[in-house]
Amino acid sequence: MSEYKAFTTDAAIAFADKHSELFGEHSKLSAEEFGGDNLHLIFRVENDKGTSLIVKQALPYVRSVGESWPLTTDRTRIEAEVLKMHRRFCPKHSVDVRYFDPVDCAILMEDLNAYRIVRSELIAGKKPGHLALQIANYMANTLFYTSDFVLSGATKKAEVARFLNPEMCLITEDLLFTDPYCNHERNSIEPSILEKAKTLWHDEALKAEVAALKADFLSKPQALLHGNLHSSSIFIDDDNCKVIAAEFGFFGPIGFDVGSLLGNLLLNYLACPGHHALEDSSEQQTYLLQQIEQLWQQFSEVFTELMRTETQDPALESGLYQSKFLQQILSDSIGYAGCELIRRTVGMAHTADFESINDASTRATCQRLAIKLGRELIMQRAELSNISQLLTLVRYQQTE
Amino acid sequence: MSEYKAFTTDAAIAFADKHSELFGEHSKLSAEEFGGDNLHLIFRVENDKGTSLIVKQALPYVRSVGESWPLTTDRTRIEAEVLKMHRRFCPKHSVDVRYFDPVDCAILMEDLNAYRIVRSELIAGKKPGHLALQIANYMANTLFYTSDFVLSGATKKAEVARFLNPEMCLITEDLLFTDPYCNHERNSIEPSILEKAKTLWHDEALKAEVAALKADFLSKPQALLHGNLHSSSIFIDDDNCKVIAAEFGFFGPIGFDVGSLLGNLLLNYLACPGHHALEDSSEQQTYLLQQIEQLWQQFSEVFTELMRTETQDPALESGLYQSKFLQQILSDSIGYAGCELIRRTVGMAHTADFESINDASTRATCQRLAIKLGRELIMQRAELSNISQLLTLVRYQQTE
Repeated sequence: MSEYKAFTTDAAIAFADKHSELFGEHSKLSAEEFGGDNLHLIFRVENDKGTSLIVKQALPYVRSVGESWPLTTDRTRIEAEVLKMHRRFCPKHSVDVRYFDPVDCAILMEDLNAYRIVRSELIAGKKPGHLALQIANYMANTLFYTSDFVLSGATKKAEVARFLNPEMCLITEDLLFTDPYCNHERNSIEPSILEKAKTLWHDEALKAEVAALKADFLSKPQALLHGNLHSSSIFIDDDNCKVIAAEFGFFGPIGFDVGSLLGNLLLNYLACPGHHALEDSSEQQTYLLQQIEQLWQQFSEVFTELMRTETQDPALESGLYQSKFLQQILSDSIGYAGCELIRRTVGMAHTADFESINDASTRATCQRLAIKLGRELIMQRAELSNISQLLTLVRYQQTE
Repeated sequence: MSEYKAFTTDAAIAFADKHSELFGEHSKLSAEEFGGDNLHLIFRVENDKGTSLIVKQALPYVRSVGESWPLTTDRTRIEAEVLKMHRRFCPKHSVDVRYFDPVDCAILMEDLNAYRIVRSELIAGKKPGHLALQIANYMANTLFYTSDFVLSGATKKAEVARFLNPEMCLITEDLLFTDPYCNHERNSIEPSILEKAKTLWHDEALKAEVAALKADFLSKPQALLHGNLHSSSIFIDDDNCKVIAAEFGFFGPIGFDVGSLLGNLLLNYLACPGHHALEDSSEQQTYLLQQIEQLWQQFSEVFTELMRTETQDPALESGLYQSKFLQQILSDSIGYAGCELIRRTVGMAHTADFESINDASTRATCQRLAIKLGRELIMQRAELSNISQLLTLVRYQQTE
C-alpha cells in the first residue's frame, strides 16, 4: 500500500489526471501551486483547452509552526464528506468535490477561478447583493437536513460518530473559547490595545457566558456544521456564492455556523473606517447591516418553512417548539458572533479586515470596538429577540 | 467462531465457571433461572459453599412481544461498559461486572442476593434513610467524571461514539417523549383515565416543552448516563445501595438520570394512598419528600464541589457558569421527572407503584394526579429555582 507524500506539481497533475474524465487522453496538463494556507497545499491543474480543477492536499502539520504542531490528515476526509453532504442539500452553493483519496489526503474539486474571496471583496468595498440571501439558503438547508428534525436517532448518531473531528474541534475550542480570556502565549495582541484586551482576562461575567457557549460547542450536536464559515470560506461571482473549506465540520450547535458568518460580517463592518473614506465607509456599513438583516431574515424564513413542512419526527412538529428553537439559534448565533469578534482581535488568528488597515491608530480603534461589541453580543444574546434589536445594538456600539 | 445461543442453566454454569476464579475446581455448581425481564435471561449460579454470581444474558428480541420486535444484543456491551465506567468513579454504588462476553452477549456479575429492589421496598412502606444520599453521590460522581468538566474534547468524543446506543435510545425516544402525547397503539391507558389522557394529545403548550426535552435527549451529550435510573434499577440493603441494569446508557443530558429517579420517587409518592392506610401514607409521603430534598441537596453539593475542585478545562472554571449549569440540571431534571410520571401512567411500560394498587378508583385518582403533576413539572421547570419550590409544587398538586 502506498503512503502519504506531499505532492509536487507533477504528482498533482497525475492525481487530477487519474481521477477525472475531464482531461482527455491527449490533452496536455500543467499545474501551478498557489494560495494554499497554513494547513494545505493547493494546486490548479489545467489542460490545454483551459479546463481546470483544484487539487487540495492536507499537510500533516501547521505550516506556519512546522512539524512541532502535527495535525490529523483525517480532516481531508471530513472536508470531502461534509462538502458532499452539504452539496446534497444545497448543490448551488457548495463546491463540487470530484474525488477524495484517503492515502494522499487529497481532494480533487471544482475550480472556482471565476470566483473571488468574499472577504477580499468586502474589504475592497464591493457590495454584492446576493451574498446574504444565498448563504442563508445554504445554511438553512444544510443545517436543517442534517438535524434531528430530519434524521432518525440511529442515523444521526452514526453521522455524529462519522464526523467527530476531535483535532480540528480542539483548535476552535482553544483558540476561540479559551485563549482570548486568559494571558495565553498563543494570543496575538497589538500593544496599543493590550490594556483593553486585559480586561477580558478578568471579566468574570463574560467568562461565565463564554463557558456556556463553549459547553454548547462541545455538547450540542444539532446539525452537521461547516464549522469555519467565515468570509474567506465563501467564494463569490456576479451571480453566485460557493462555500469551500469544510475541514472543521462536525455536529455542533446550529448557531455556530450562523454566528461565524455574522461575526465576520461585523468584523468587516467595524473595519470600514480603516478602508474607505468617510462617505464610502458609511455606505459600506449600511450595505453590511442590510446583508446581516437579510442573512437572518432569509435563514429564519427558510428554516421555519423547512421545520413546518419537512420535519420527520412527530414529537418535534410543534410550531411553538419550532419558534422557540429558532429563537435559540438567534441567541446562540449572536453569542458566537461575539466570540468571533474577540478571537479575531486578540487571539492567534486574525483576519485581513483589521490586519490590512494601515493606519495604526484607526486599526486600534477598530479592534477596541470589536472587543466592546463582542462582549455586548455575548452578554446580551439572550435578550435580543429579533434582528432589528441586534442591528440597533451594533449601531449604538460604534463609539468607544 | 462460536455464535449466540440462549443459555440453558447448564450453559450458564459453564459460563460462570469459565470466567470466574470464585468457584474452585472441585466445588459443585448449581444454577437457577429467575427474575429476568422482557429483555434478558438471568441466572444465579452458586457453589456448594454458598458463593454465588449472576449471569445475565441479553435476548435478541423483546420477550413479551416476541421475535417480531428484535433488539440489539450490543446493549449488553453497553451495560457492561457503562457499569465498569461508573464503578471507576463510584465503586461503592455500582454493581461489580466480572466479565462480559460479546458473542454470548452475557455478563457475569456480583450477586446482590442480600439486597432488595428499591421500588418493592418503597411500595412496602420501608423508609431506608440512606437511599437518596447514596444515589446522589453515585449520580454526582459518575456524571461529573464523564462530563466536559473532566474529559478532554478528544476523549469525550471517542466515548460518545463508543456509547451511541441507538436502538435503546430509540425506545426511550418513542415511549417517553412521543407516544404519550398522541393516540399511539403502544400506549396502555386505563379506560377510567382515558379522558384525562386524551388532554395530553391536544396540549400544544405541553407538546412544545416535551419537544425541547426530547431534543436535548437527542442532542445534549453532557455525560455518560445510566439511562434508566428508576427505582427497580437500584438495589438496597440496610447499609448500601447498588445500581444495576445500565443497558440504556449513553451520553445525554445530566438531568435525565436525576429526573428519572426523581420521577420514580414521585410516582411512589403519588401511589402512597393506594398502598397504605391514611396515617401511614402521610408518613411515607413525608419520608419520600425528605428523600427527594436530600437527593437534590446532596447531588448539588457534591457536584458543585467537584466542579470547583476537579474541573480540567480552564474555560469551564467560572463559578458563575458552574452555578448556572447546576441550575439548568435542576430544571432539566424536573422536566424529565414530569415526563417519567406521564409515561408510566399512559405509556406502554407502567410500574408496580400504580399497577399494584388494587382499588380501581384509588388507582385512577393516583394516575390522574400523576398526569397533572407531570404536566406541571414540565411546564414550570424553568421557574423552579430550588428544591423547596419543587416540593411546594408537589404538595400543592395533591388534589385533582
